[in-house]
Amino acid sequence: MSEPAYLEGAPLQPGGKAAPTTLLFDTFGTTADWKSSLVEHCAAIAAAAGLRADWPAFVTEWRSLYQPAIAPVRDGQRLWADFDELHRETLDTLLPKYALNTLSDADRDHMVYGWHLLHGWPDTVQGLTRLRQRHILGALSNGTTRQLVDMAKRSAFPWDVIFGADQWQTYKPAPALYLGALKLLKAPASSVVMVAAHNNDLQAAQNHGLQTAFIHRPTEDPAPTARYTYIATDFNDLATQLGC
Amino acid sequence: MSEPAYLEGAPLQPGGKAAPTTLLFDTFGTTADWKSSLVEHCAAIAAAAGLRADWPAFVTEWRSLYQPAIAPVRDGQRLWADFDELHRETLDTLLPKYALNTLSDADRDHMVYGWHLLHGWPDTVQGLTRLRQRHILGALSNGTTRQLVDMAKRSAFPWDVIFGADQWQTYKPAPALYLGALKLLKAPASSVVMVAAHNNDLQAAQNHGLQTAFIHRPTEDPAPTARYTYIATDFNDLATQLGC
Repeated sequence: MSEPAYLEGAPLQPGGKAAPTTLLFDTFGTTADWKSSLVEHCAAIAAAAGLRADWPAFVTEWRSLYQPAIAPVRDGQRLWADFDELHRETLDTLLPKYALNTLSDADRDHMVYGWHLLHGWPDTVQGLTRLRQRHILGALSNGTTRQLVDMAKRSAFPWDVIFGADQWQTYKPAPALYLGALKLLKAPASSVVMVAAHNNDLQAAQNHGLQTAFIHRPTEDPAPTARYTYIATDFNDLATQLGC
Repeated sequence: MSEPAYLEGAPLQPGGKAAPTTLLFDTFGTTADWKSSLVEHCAAIAAAAGLRADWPAFVTEWRSLYQPAIAPVRDGQRLWADFDELHRETLDTLLPKYALNTLSDADRDHMVYGWHLLHGWPDTVQGLTRLRQRHILGALSNGTTRQLVDMAKRSAFPWDVIFGADQWQTYKPAPALYLGALKLLKAPASSVVMVAAHNNDLQAAQNHGLQTAFIHRPTEDPAPTARYTYIATDFNDLATQLGC
């Protein structure tokens, strides 16, 4: 009986790297292009209500409120609140500044729901499809499980398994997510690659013994700030580096 | 922006049933044909070791040891032990009766690993593919997450999301699994159908307000013993009943 590559041991790649069996992907920014997705989504909702704004500035600022919102949850200063709740809070905070505070509750819910419907970068679906042939692909995200399911269905992200932050009720880079995913996969850390466009995510993964892949994305961290196992221009480049 | 059916509300189906958005599937017996898969798998391993046995009897008896093995875990009389561990224990118990106790540890591990590689029933992949176009499809199984991932990859089960018993460290029909899956899906119970070939699974789901679908499978419960939302001959029949 021949086993697919991801079921075998981890032979050495050229260059002496252990071949991974499993790749875990950050979603927002790394897999999904939140900025152009949300610009389009929010503009359409507001236009139907007769409102206009500088949407690239608006969504960039909305996104910037994410780290301050998750920090108190991750640090245990606030009870669990998921991405839908936090995005609604930060939206309500932001709307007056952009003269959008006449938007109805339904429109606000619909804007928040835009985070469930993000599309990928141009290489996302093709790159994941190549990588999936020889690896287990998991989303490991600060989004909710449902949010990741909705996004995968809408945008055809071919995950084998989805790990949302709600499964551990904390946020990356808290150890619980990396260690929890490894445990559910019954995988040694060295056989798993964390794939992200964010240094803090990769450095946390590295601290737990995972391999790492930094992906250059125009809206995310401009450059790697540590040594990673792989550095790639996009998912197709990563697939090529992994021999897929 | 048009939404796929699973994102919309739940309009009434003909007959007054609320249209579900999400289907949760039992795996062993309902989605996967454990018996013929394991007969083939175990016979091959034993043949390579020069051993023969009545494999249909052997795997049927192995499977019958599953409910007694999970009961103490579910009832809190034993600490968490997952399917791989329990299958190894029951295998070790069973081998002497079939004069197979000369099998090596590696062969025993390989036999247990057969539970990760089960194939579907003839209708499984086609039926799930039809159902997936209009619904979120999740595995909700007593297997481990990794086991379900391996099986899905090997046998092309097109899940949107996988819920293994290790996510809650207990076994169906414990409430934690049904309620935990609903919570992660952020879905009202009435919008979700539990699909199984086992009455105990469906009756537990029904107790928590889920819809239910009984599937007739030749190796599983011979007939429904309660009123279910759907009764189907296989996954294609269920897809037809759900308008897919």
